[in-house]
Amino acid sequence: MPGCVTIWTYDWVPKGPRGYVRDLRLRWAAEEAGVVYAVAAVPFDGRGPDHLARQPFAQIPFLDDGDIRVFESGACLLHLAERREALMPRDVGGRADTMQWLIAALNSIEMVTVPWWFINLSRPIDNPLAGWMTQRLERLNAVLDRRDWLAASRFTVADLLMADVLRVPGDLGELDNFGALKAYVARVCARPAFQKARRDQIAFFDAADAARA
Amino acid sequence: MPGCVTIWTYDWVPKGPRGYVRDLRLRWAAEEAGVVYAVAAVPFDGRGPDHLARQPFAQIPFLDDGDIRVFESGACLLHLAERREALMPRDVGGRADTMQWLIAALNSIEMVTVPWWFINLSRPIDNPLAGWMTQRLERLNAVLDRRDWLAASRFTVADLLMADVLRVPGDLGELDNFGALKAYVARVCARPAFQKARRDQIAFFDAADAARA
Repeated sequence: MPGCVTIWTYDWVPKGPRGYVRDLRLRWAAEEAGVVYAVAAVPFDGRGPDHLARQPFAQIPFLDDGDIRVFESGACLLHLAERREALMPRDVGGRADTMQWLIAALNSIEMVTVPWWFINLSRPIDNPLAGWMTQRLERLNAVLDRRDWLAASRFTVADLLMADVLRVPGDLGELDNFGALKAYVARVCARPAFQKARRDQIAFFDAADAARA
Repeated sequence: MPGCVTIWTYDWVPKGPRGYVRDLRLRWAAEEAGVVYAVAAVPFDGRGPDHLARQPFAQIPFLDDGDIRVFESGACLLHLAERREALMPRDVGGRADTMQWLIAALNSIEMVTVPWWFINLSRPIDNPLAGWMTQRLERLNAVLDRRDWLAASRFTVADLLMADVLRVPGDLGELDNFGALKAYVARVCARPAFQKARRDQIAFFDAADAARA
C-alpha cells in the first residue's frame, strides 16, 4: 500500500461553498476506500509561490501520497483509485469503463455545467450555455434511466465524481426535469462516505472561522 | 501488446472543422507510439441508437482496442498511453505527473476555452468567459515559460492533449500575448506524428466529399 496520504485544501472559505469545495471529492474517495488521511491547508487569501508550485492555477485540492504529489481533483481520484478496488475495478475492461465515465464527468458534463454556473452568477436570464447544458443532461439522463451506476455495473469513482459534478446544477433546480439524474444524485450522495466527507469539510471550515475571528 | 486498434470518427464533416476533429488526438497518439490502427466511421448526419450505444453524447471519437471499447478522447488517450512508454512514463511518479497535466488540459484549460469558443461563435464581443480564459492562459504561460514539456521532463500524452486544446484559441489570436504558449504549441505541433495525423484526417474527410457529391 502507498505511504501517508495528505489532502490539501484552503485554510478557510466563505460559508457559501462549504460542503462543495473540491477537497470533498478526495475526502469522499478516501472514506470509500478506507484510506487513512490527513488534511492540510494553504491560505485562501494571498495565494503565493508555495501554492503555485503545487497547483499552477492557484486552486485546490492537491494530494501527497508518500513521495507522489498530484493536483487536479480528477487526477487525484484516478491516482487513489488505481490501487484500490473499492474505487475502480482492477481488470482492464472495468478500468477503461471507469476512466471513460470519470473523464465524461469532467469533459462532457462539468465542461458545460461549471461555465454555465459561472455565467449564471451574473446573468441568470438568457445564459448562452443553457441549451447546451440541457442537451448534455438529457443524454446522461437517458443513460441513468436504464442503470444505477455509470461503469462496470457497480459503484466506482466515476459515480463519485459525476454525482458531485451534478450537485451544483441539481441544487439550482436544473435537474428537476431529469428524474433519473435526481434519483442518481440522491442515491450516490446517500452513501455514508459522502455524508462523512461533507460533514468533515463543513466542520473544518467552521472551525477556521474561530481562528480568523 | 493489445489487439487491433480502431479509431472511430464521423463519415464526413464540413470543411471548417477538418484538421480539428478530435479523432486527430487518437491518430496522433497512435502515430507517436507506432500503434497500427484502422479508422472507422459513424454517420455525421442522423446519429442513431448504434452511435449512442458507443458514445452516449452522440460525439466522436471512440476506440476499439481488441475487446476494450472506450469513449471520451481523454480516456482513449489514457488507455492508449497506459502500456506505451512513448506516451507516458511507466514509473508511478511519471504516470501521476502525466495524468495530472492531461486532466488539467481537459478540466482547467478546455473547460474554459471550449465554452469561450462556443459563445464566441455568436457573440465575439463581451464574451462572459474572456477574463477567466485570460487568467488560466496566464497561469499556464508562466509554467511553460520555465520548461519545454508539462510532465516528467519529456514529451508525453499530456503535451499532445494540451497543445491540441490550445490550438483553437491560438488560431483565433488568443495566444498572441502569451509567448511561451505560442512557442509551445508550435513546438509540439511540429512533431511529425501530429503533421501526419492532421494530414490524414483532412484527406479522410476530403475523400468523403466525393462520396456525398
